[in-house]
Amino acid sequence: MTRTSDLIHSVRPIDSQAAEAARARQRALTKPAGSLGTLERLHAQLAGIRGDVLPTIEGPWVVVMAADHGVASEGVSAYPQRATAEMVRNFMRGGAAINALAREAGARLVVVDLGVAWDDGDTLPDGIIHRSLGRGSANFSREPAMDPSLAFRGLEAGAEIAGDVAAAGADLLALGDMGIGNTTAAAALIAAATGQPARAVTGIGTGVSSAVWEHKVAMVERALARNRATRDDPLGLLASVGGFEIAGLVGAIIGGAAAGLPIVLDGVVVGAAALVAIALCPPSRSYLIASHRSAEPGHRVALEYLELEPIMDLGMRLGEGSGAALSVPLLRAACRLACEMATFDEAGVPQQHGSRERDIDGDPLHHAPLSRGCSFVCSG
Amino acid sequence: MTRTSDLIHSVRPIDSQAAEAARARQRALTKPAGSLGTLERLHAQLAGIRGDVLPTIEGPWVVVMAADHGVASEGVSAYPQRATAEMVRNFMRGGAAINALAREAGARLVVVDLGVAWDDGDTLPDGIIHRSLGRGSANFSREPAMDPSLAFRGLEAGAEIAGDVAAAGADLLALGDMGIGNTTAAAALIAAATGQPARAVTGIGTGVSSAVWEHKVAMVERALARNRATRDDPLGLLASVGGFEIAGLVGAIIGGAAAGLPIVLDGVVVGAAALVAIALCPPSRSYLIASHRSAEPGHRVALEYLELEPIMDLGMRLGEGSGAALSVPLLRAACRLACEMATFDEAGVPQQHGSRERDIDGDPLHHAPLSRGCSFVCSG
Repeated sequence: MTRTSDLIHSVRPIDSQAAEAARARQRALTKPAGSLGTLERLHAQLAGIRGDVLPTIEGPWVVVMAADHGVASEGVSAYPQRATAEMVRNFMRGGAAINALAREAGARLVVVDLGVAWDDGDTLPDGIIHRSLGRGSANFSREPAMDPSLAFRGLEAGAEIAGDVAAAGADLLALGDMGIGNTTAAAALIAAATGQPARAVTGIGTGVSSAVWEHKVAMVERALARNRATRDDPLGLLASVGGFEIAGLVGAIIGGAAAGLPIVLDGVVVGAAALVAIALCPPSRSYLIASHRSAEPGHRVALEYLELEPIMDLGMRLGEGSGAALSVPLLRAACRLACEMATFDEAGVPQQHGSRERDIDGDPLHHAPLSRGCSFVCSG
Repeated sequence: MTRTSDLIHSVRPIDSQAAEAARARQRALTKPAGSLGTLERLHAQLAGIRGDVLPTIEGPWVVVMAADHGVASEGVSAYPQRATAEMVRNFMRGGAAINALAREAGARLVVVDLGVAWDDGDTLPDGIIHRSLGRGSANFSREPAMDPSLAFRGLEAGAEIAGDVAAAGADLLALGDMGIGNTTAAAALIAAATGQPARAVTGIGTGVSSAVWEHKVAMVERALARNRATRDDPLGLLASVGGFEIAGLVGAIIGGAAAGLPIVLDGVVVGAAALVAIALCPPSRSYLIASHRSAEPGHRVALEYLELEPIMDLGMRLGEGSGAALSVPLLRAACRLACEMATFDEAGVPQQHGSRERDIDGDPLHHAPLSRGCSFVCSG
């Protein structure tokens, strides 16, 4: 408990001076002010997180946390529980969506077993990081998902992994999830944390029929009726209606923020983990980047509650960190623009009519030589 | 005129069998059906355009067309006309947004002068492609922007460049524009082509004040009142209220489609060119990909008229092909996913409950060995 408390207190506010310097640089670059839209906001946020007006993304890492969920036995998913283990194998062989997307992003991929329900005869895949809390959480529609001590262990495991990733040279942490049944857990957490009804935050997950969706809503409602934890007790909520991989994700968010990494969120499951993380550690919110808004209704609710504007909305609902990985080239582009573009002064491009520079100079057409590369040390 | 007519008739429908095979492959990949959202649609479209169920994007090219506009003398921009020439120089030295974005996309960048208003003493920048139709079009709020013969020349130049780019190995053509005053031309073209009022399609462009915006609307209205060309005469419209670089972009769209390239549109100026291109050559519509929706209101109108769903909306309003270049990694990701992901059969991942495969097999848990790489020849 002390380690968790220490961790939470180690998250510092982001560097507002670097963020402000980034906004000033955006105004000096050869483009109309504000014309790069969201990319300008992302540059300023990344500058603030990294404490560097010209942040770079040279070491993006994707960390996928996997676990099983007892609630899957209630028939809330379109897939059998066994799909979790087989998809984790698929990750380790390079055949899943997140593998292709991590390659496109130029990102390292780490898969963490927080509690996959392996069969007795299973040999565990090579390369996976073992932090298993058990073969799946309990069926939270009937009893708490886990003992609070397991929630703490999951959180500390996630935080430790985020710290290890930062120590290994990561400059960006994209998070993903895998676990049959985990959109049901996410819906329960989001409902409990935001006060929205189960019906408003429960989606079709892997693609269930409307009859199964009604049943899934009923299971979330049963879990919420059983749950005794309040919003003011985020770890209690996590233990009551969360999941092992969600505990790990909460820890990775806080641990990543403590290590000064931008944390790129994925879909509804990572979004639910972010709600718990922010309740535990409000300063970590400034480190969060919402990569996309998924098709899951609970994701929209979570992002609005977190006051995070997603970069994209591609109607995705896959999880695995897919949306987070997909956003990495856009984030890298935001950094490159800030770093590689010439300023008006460097390029000798006329300023906007009535801009301050012009008023001062009197001659908007002066031809300052363009320095090769930008005037700051940067790569890419 | 005959060359233009031949070009228009050389655009073939896209390969619907390849597109259907792409959709079938998406259903076989190890993910819930439909869970990759827009990326699945983009894969099917790219497959249809390239006639290949597993298209690749290994040679993306960005082509930026630049020209000046007589209407700039009416004070419709936040920048002086001179900014066009200086920004083109900035492109050629690598200091503009499109340079950074093309590098991030791994794309070649080509800049074409369709009619920049160089000063007498100017030495033209190295590397630019010269297809100048003159030092800027006429002030279309008072007289036609250009003689119809110039519009034809611009169109043929753009088509020729698209063909050259395809012959040089491009497998994707992203289009951009540069020209002070060209959002005024785009607004006039969009209003004339869609029947929407000037006020609904005119934006702040580079960032004009509300007083200048009112004046800009008045200039568009004056141009539309003067214009005699109807919607059924797209080349007449282009000559009346278009611009030299817009003529080049119309040609590049049709020429790119004729060469079988996916055409990635950028913002409102390229969108206006697409309206003209589709009116001239309806089959070219299937080759168009809307990279983003810009902050310009006319862009939304143009995309809705074209029935194109933009991939992103990042509040950008820069032009230069910036949004188009930014979308290239997403398009490449769509191709990689299709190519590199394992199928359910390959990975031995259990199928969705009640899926057809499961009904046929009886055993959703069978462990077929995963072929290394995918079962089709592909790279990346």
